[in-house]
Amino acid sequence: MYTGSLRRLIDELGRLPGIGPKSAQRMAFYLLKIPNEDAHRLSDAIIEVKNNTSLCPTCLNVADTGELCPVCADSQRPTTILCVVEDPRDIVSVERTNQFHGRYHVLHGALNPLEGIGPEQIRVQELLARIEPEGVEEVILCTNPNLEGEATAMYLARLLSPLGLKVTRIASGLPVGGDLEYADDLTLGRALEDRRTVETD
Amino acid sequence: MYTGSLRRLIDELGRLPGIGPKSAQRMAFYLLKIPNEDAHRLSDAIIEVKNNTSLCPTCLNVADTGELCPVCADSQRPTTILCVVEDPRDIVSVERTNQFHGRYHVLHGALNPLEGIGPEQIRVQELLARIEPEGVEEVILCTNPNLEGEATAMYLARLLSPLGLKVTRIASGLPVGGDLEYADDLTLGRALEDRRTVETD
Repeated sequence: MYTGSLRRLIDELGRLPGIGPKSAQRMAFYLLKIPNEDAHRLSDAIIEVKNNTSLCPTCLNVADTGELCPVCADSQRPTTILCVVEDPRDIVSVERTNQFHGRYHVLHGALNPLEGIGPEQIRVQELLARIEPEGVEEVILCTNPNLEGEATAMYLARLLSPLGLKVTRIASGLPVGGDLEYADDLTLGRALEDRRTVETD
Repeated sequence: MYTGSLRRLIDELGRLPGIGPKSAQRMAFYLLKIPNEDAHRLSDAIIEVKNNTSLCPTCLNVADTGELCPVCADSQRPTTILCVVEDPRDIVSVERTNQFHGRYHVLHGALNPLEGIGPEQIRVQELLARIEPEGVEEVILCTNPNLEGEATAMYLARLLSPLGLKVTRIASGLPVGGDLEYADDLTLGRALEDRRTVETD
């Protein structure tokens, strides 16, 4: 039913994460319809990101090749507090909260013994190497609150605490605006466990 | 937070239909991670589809430039029965049912007076020009069962019926596997109106 080049485009789009056959088809027909220069802009952007992007030599975030990432390049940010995340995308999420103004370290993964991912497969050595030279005083373990993320946080806490650092973990609990009725047992249990005194002054 | 080239890719991906900022970000980071040759394949497929694709001179479906579309190129298909659709994508949907084996005509839109789309803005002339030379005996009006599609079907029926053709419209009703409880009033009303005698022989 499709011509060769349309079939190929649908196949390639269908490889993108979260894109099923229907979405791929919809996107392909959209690309068919738009002006040539708009389609070229997307095509060029893909190539450009592959050519011009690598990892920040300091924190391993995404950065323009040969440069520091935007966070590390910002000299206003203190190096004494470090937020450890699994993925460069997580930096975007944390930045959006406006609650953190320190530096980051990207592990590029989480411990997962079943899939053969141990401490050597993620960027733990690079993290350790930063602690002293940068004068880090607190490390916030901001890995995902799932099995792998918790294991990674626990592992890092054991590794970092003896160095005399303050090591903290992001809180788990009910989402803001959430509903007790729809909370899962584990989350509600954790919210109870981590309950805090209400300040009334 | 993003580097320039990553920002640009996310922006370009975000223009695709059905792709919000989160999906665009996810897709961009995926493209960052995959091997260069895989990213190039997608980039090339976009350019190729723009360069090699145009409209079938007969039915206005998508076709390789200078060639008939796969349906019109199939000499086994009778030209006596014509299925009129709004969009090339609709051909894919009809073909998937395996219930139709004739030819198609793509209108590239539907009548929408409020947006200034009248019969001259869609491919009605091209449809009329096919009726006699191809010996068309039945036209199935397969436009969408919404306001614009119904208006288009009504308009075409009035135009084609005087030519001595059989003009039919796809049925509206409850989806197969559907549930009366969840059917909207209009659909259920139409299903009642278009009820048919049950054959029991």
